[in-house]
Amino acid sequence: MDAPARAPLTPLALTMGDPAGIGPEIALLAWRDRQRRALPPFAVYADLDLMRDRAALIAAPVPIEPVPNAKTGASCFTEALPVVAIPLARPARPGVPDAENAGATLLSIRRAVADVAADKAAAVVTNPIAKSVLYQAGFSHPGHTEFLGALAREYWPGEAAEPVMMLAGPDLRVVPVTIHVALKEVPGLLTTVRIMATARIVANALKRDFGIEAPRLAVSGLNPHAGEDGALGTEDQEVVRPAVEALRAEGFDIRGPLSADTMFHAAARKTYDAAIAMYHDQALIPIKTLAFDEGVNITLGLPFVRTSPDHGTAFAIAGRGVASPASLEAALKLAAEMSARRLGATAP
Amino acid sequence: MDAPARAPLTPLALTMGDPAGIGPEIALLAWRDRQRRALPPFAVYADLDLMRDRAALIAAPVPIEPVPNAKTGASCFTEALPVVAIPLARPARPGVPDAENAGATLLSIRRAVADVAADKAAAVVTNPIAKSVLYQAGFSHPGHTEFLGALAREYWPGEAAEPVMMLAGPDLRVVPVTIHVALKEVPGLLTTVRIMATARIVANALKRDFGIEAPRLAVSGLNPHAGEDGALGTEDQEVVRPAVEALRAEGFDIRGPLSADTMFHAAARKTYDAAIAMYHDQALIPIKTLAFDEGVNITLGLPFVRTSPDHGTAFAIAGRGVASPASLEAALKLAAEMSARRLGATAP
Repeated sequence: MDAPARAPLTPLALTMGDPAGIGPEIALLAWRDRQRRALPPFAVYADLDLMRDRAALIAAPVPIEPVPNAKTGASCFTEALPVVAIPLARPARPGVPDAENAGATLLSIRRAVADVAADKAAAVVTNPIAKSVLYQAGFSHPGHTEFLGALAREYWPGEAAEPVMMLAGPDLRVVPVTIHVALKEVPGLLTTVRIMATARIVANALKRDFGIEAPRLAVSGLNPHAGEDGALGTEDQEVVRPAVEALRAEGFDIRGPLSADTMFHAAARKTYDAAIAMYHDQALIPIKTLAFDEGVNITLGLPFVRTSPDHGTAFAIAGRGVASPASLEAALKLAAEMSARRLGATAP
Repeated sequence: MDAPARAPLTPLALTMGDPAGIGPEIALLAWRDRQRRALPPFAVYADLDLMRDRAALIAAPVPIEPVPNAKTGASCFTEALPVVAIPLARPARPGVPDAENAGATLLSIRRAVADVAADKAAAVVTNPIAKSVLYQAGFSHPGHTEFLGALAREYWPGEAAEPVMMLAGPDLRVVPVTIHVALKEVPGLLTTVRIMATARIVANALKRDFGIEAPRLAVSGLNPHAGEDGALGTEDQEVVRPAVEALRAEGFDIRGPLSADTMFHAAARKTYDAAIAMYHDQALIPIKTLAFDEGVNITLGLPFVRTSPDHGTAFAIAGRGVASPASLEAALKLAAEMSARRLGATAP
């Protein structure tokens, strides 16, 4: 019996990010690398003049092809960079963020999500935004991820949308249970229910999007040495361990709480498919120490695939052509692999 | 003019550690590696039968030479392992800790320190102990390091003894300001004065013991992204930054508070000689992720040089001959380099 025919993957929707940041130029550089790095087709949701001007500024002669959505960009991608026009309020100066353009930055994200919902893009890859600029324009979400969660509920009404951040490098995946909060808030925010909910979303994503049939999870302790039997804090016994034990009783392949300092070396990393950490630095220190240029930020728990480069707007170097597209390229490749698996399409 | 003649370094005093742990066997294995790894001469402060029995158990035919102190072991080190006799209360069973032998474990440490004070050893290298075993025998210090601080005050009355833990790998040195405390205690324990005191001890040690004339320090923030201008916690602005600024005003080469997740990748590590982190996992995750087998634990701020392998007693594998002496060997080499600089001796 033949396998069912699989359609080629629809192109990815890549957002503009802050137009004064490095997003536009790393999009151009990634398109130039499309053959050498075997990148999947993508369209940028951005201002047409922004892309042309930035290409001229960094002396990257990239032909720009206006398209109505990512899907229609498939046919031209080998010859030109497809761009879905999202007009800026005024021209963007590299390195000088402008709240007047916040509306276009947000519209780019919305259009990308809407096109995935309409089957006109396979997944969303986001360029970096600067929250402080968006706040000046009235943006009220804590961050990119929460905004995507709200869009998910709008475009996929009735579907679960509990965004969970994963960072993935060549040989490590980490998920922090708490993220952008002061360290002193962390112990109070951790609950057994929250750790369990996070672990379930991670295990499901590893199966559905990463093709790992029996995912192995490792859970860090909150305290040094996972609390050393209560001598260094009680949360690991009272909050973390019950979550791990309840999930194991349900059949999950999960271990913990583990001493966070000894779970990220090369041999330890081979024993699990994802590490679940209790807070930001506990998760991000190991991944960025190991894979600073190749790390990818992934949002799990949404009805669509979303990845992003693991860096910020880098205003200080924007427009100089020195920004590396490596993390964006890794994000594009991973988004294509994940959505091909999820959609049953042929990975490019 | 000739340089002043430098005496060869006195041998190091290596403590027994918990006799039921891997300490005795990694001492034997290190002695066997003495030529291949160009190790400095050392004497083990341990029970003679323990060393002979463990050598037989792991089939390592190491000749044992009883000596009165490390210095007298210098002449025999190439031919035999010098052992300063510290009798056990009863024979030690590998993997089975015994509070009856806690007295000998502690005496080994005391004798090693006393011999350094009497110029009969160059420095102390400690094998791992199990605090819970020592507590059963009435030991009242929070850990190894604090016990060494107390011994320092006893044997070097009037000299400063403020132990500060550094972990060093091949290309990273880290110092946590707070160590073995529950995570929720950390924000309350951090003070500007404490961070400044730690940084001063680190800078002095980098000069005196590591030969770095103008040490560069990098200080992490407590909160994610070093608090993001107060959005993610106020301690980085109110506690950490004033410490860094005060030290810089005094002429220290010091930067911070830095986002902890982006300060440990390869390029960032080249910009400083030591990283000062705010708590245990922030310091230990990067060093153990990068240098799990070669990390060395160093106690700065004492009147003598002390290093130690960066692992525990490993009761589970004791007596099987499978423990790696790599970290102990790195600790021996580093102790010799540090004390040769401090004492003006010839490094072996």
